[in-house]
Amino acid sequence: MRVLGIDPSVRSTGYGVIESHGSVVRLIEAGIITTSARGQTFTTRLGDINDSLQAIIKATRPDLVAIEEVFAREVNPKTTIMMAHARGALLAAVAGAHLDVVEFSATSVKRALAGSGAASKEQVARMVVQILRLARTPRPADVTDALALAIACAHRNGRRVR
Amino acid sequence: MRVLGIDPSVRSTGYGVIESHGSVVRLIEAGIITTSARGQTFTTRLGDINDSLQAIIKATRPDLVAIEEVFAREVNPKTTIMMAHARGALLAAVAGAHLDVVEFSATSVKRALAGSGAASKEQVARMVVQILRLARTPRPADVTDALALAIACAHRNGRRVR
Repeated sequence: MRVLGIDPSVRSTGYGVIESHGSVVRLIEAGIITTSARGQTFTTRLGDINDSLQAIIKATRPDLVAIEEVFAREVNPKTTIMMAHARGALLAAVAGAHLDVVEFSATSVKRALAGSGAASKEQVARMVVQILRLARTPRPADVTDALALAIACAHRNGRRVR
Repeated sequence: MRVLGIDPSVRSTGYGVIESHGSVVRLIEAGIITTSARGQTFTTRLGDINDSLQAIIKATRPDLVAIEEVFAREVNPKTTIMMAHARGALLAAVAGAHLDVVEFSATSVKRALAGSGAASKEQVARMVVQILRLARTPRPADVTDALALAIACAHRNGRRVR
C-alpha cells in the first residue's frame, strides 16, 4: 500500500510517499511544496499548492492520504487560519483524486513511531531515518513530519482488522 | 465589469455574480454551494466546493472576485478554521481561473452599501434588493452576503482611479 503523508502550510507543505509491504516500508518520494509572498498573491499561492499536490498524486499514485488533525486551540490563531487555507486547497486536490484521508493527532504520530506521545521531534526523525533506511534526516523538517505521518498511517492500517 | 462575490462556508457557500456599467448594477446569477456531513467526508466536501466554484466561474465568466476578510479573533475558532478550509478550496478554484481577488472587511461592505459600518444585516439586505432591483430579499442570507460583497467591490472599483 502507498501512503502519502502531508504536513500542510502555505509557505512550505511537506509531503512524503511511502510504500509498505507488511512491516517493510520504503520511501518512494518526498519533498516540499513552497510558495512565496513575493510576487504571488495569497490566491495564486493556494492555486499552486493545489496544482502541485495534484501533480504529486498523479506521479506517485498513493492509495491513501495521511494528514495531521487541526486544533482550534493553537498558539497562534493567524498561523492556524493560514494553515487551514492550505489544508483546504490540498484536500480539494486529494478529493479530485478520489483518495481517502486519515487524520492523525501529533501525539498519535509520535506514539506510532517512537512508542510515546511525548517523544521529541528528534526521536521521531531518528525513527523515520531508521524505518526508511535513509542515509540522513530529510530536510526541511516538514518532509520528516510528512513521512512520519505516512509511516504512522501505514502501521495503523497494517494493524487494522478488515 | 462582472464581479463574483463569495461568502465562504463548508456547509453553505453563498455566491453572487453581478455586472456593473457605471452606476448601473444588475444580477447575473446567485445561489449557494451546499455540502452535507451526511454521506460525505470533509475532504469530498472541499472537493465539491472547489468543483462547484470552477463550474460557476466557467458559466458566469466574472472579471474579478470579492471575498470577505478572515479575522483570527472570531467568536468560535472551530467555525473560523472550517471556514478557512472552505476558503482555501474556493480560492484554489479562483486561482485556476486566473482571477484577481479583492478582500473586504464586513464593516467596509456595510459602509459601501448602507453608508455606515454599523448598518444592520437587514439594512444591507434592503440595499442589495434596491440596487439589483429584486422582487424580494434573496434566501438564504449567504446569497445576500455574497451579493453585497460583489456590489461593494463594483462600487469600489468604479471609484478607484486608474
